[in-house]
Amino acid sequence: MSCDKYVILGLDPGLVKTGWGVISSAPSGVKYIDCGIIKTKPSSQMEVRLTFIYDSVQDLISSFNPKFVAMEEIFVNTNSKTSEKLIMARTASFISASKAGFVINGYPPNKIKKNITGFGHASKEQIHRMIQGIFGENIKQDKEHTFDSMDALAVALCHAFSNGKHIRC
Amino acid sequence: MSCDKYVILGLDPGLVKTGWGVISSAPSGVKYIDCGIIKTKPSSQMEVRLTFIYDSVQDLISSFNPKFVAMEEIFVNTNSKTSEKLIMARTASFISASKAGFVINGYPPNKIKKNITGFGHASKEQIHRMIQGIFGENIKQDKEHTFDSMDALAVALCHAFSNGKHIRC
Repeated sequence: MSCDKYVILGLDPGLVKTGWGVISSAPSGVKYIDCGIIKTKPSSQMEVRLTFIYDSVQDLISSFNPKFVAMEEIFVNTNSKTSEKLIMARTASFISASKAGFVINGYPPNKIKKNITGFGHASKEQIHRMIQGIFGENIKQDKEHTFDSMDALAVALCHAFSNGKHIRC
Repeated sequence: MSCDKYVILGLDPGLVKTGWGVISSAPSGVKYIDCGIIKTKPSSQMEVRLTFIYDSVQDLISSFNPKFVAMEEIFVNTNSKTSEKLIMARTASFISASKAGFVINGYPPNKIKKNITGFGHASKEQIHRMIQGIFGENIKQDKEHTFDSMDALAVALCHAFSNGKHIRC
């Protein structure tokens, strides 16, 4: 693939649902490729859940051969147990992409919102409307996918819209 | 290896230093096998550091062929950034052992202290003296190893001294 066109895998990590979105970016614009969620059962052992996330990210990388991997950075709040699980899920994705040779491009939520809508405090709904506006009807509209995979597409798009150090060809 | 004698890998996770300790446990008693640290450079990228921890744990499992993996559980405090790094480092070890097919036996610090000294609020020094007393002069006395690898040996020993659900043969 030339430097002019490249594939980006965006990930929105979570222990129950990790959203993923794949887009291509070229001088002619961005294109939707695919999106979905990696879902783990709360009743499963943590070993099974993290291994499943790890394996699924490896599969996504093999399937879509992205040039960049982008991930939403975590806002660590004071609810320690929730944060701990979220960090563990994120680390599973992070190590999986690292093992595949990627440097992970992390973006905090406000940066993602700002890069997409121009406003760092945009609502989730505004983000989702913008994503649908950009990619049109191609996006999977499976209800279960919507929120998490849309957030992952937003991360991928944020990377496409970034410039300078993030886009290295 | 029969059920009567088995090898335990103990891990004390940390991003800069992950201590590891390997012991064998048999009806005749526990024996020291080896210990050390997995060290990562603070100047390295997080991708490199976590991948190194992951790979090192895989290497330890290949080298020592343990029957059990035990790990110190994290006390998540209010210093979020420090906790986040510690959780990420722990998750690297956790996923590495999970990918090798292990169920990870996690022990909180007080349980480790209690299992070894009989006192849940024992000091680090008391724990280390006890470990040295049990294993004698065989333990590597490399200064750099001492604290973290001793803690890892304590985790392995805690698992050996546990009974019921943890020891499954």
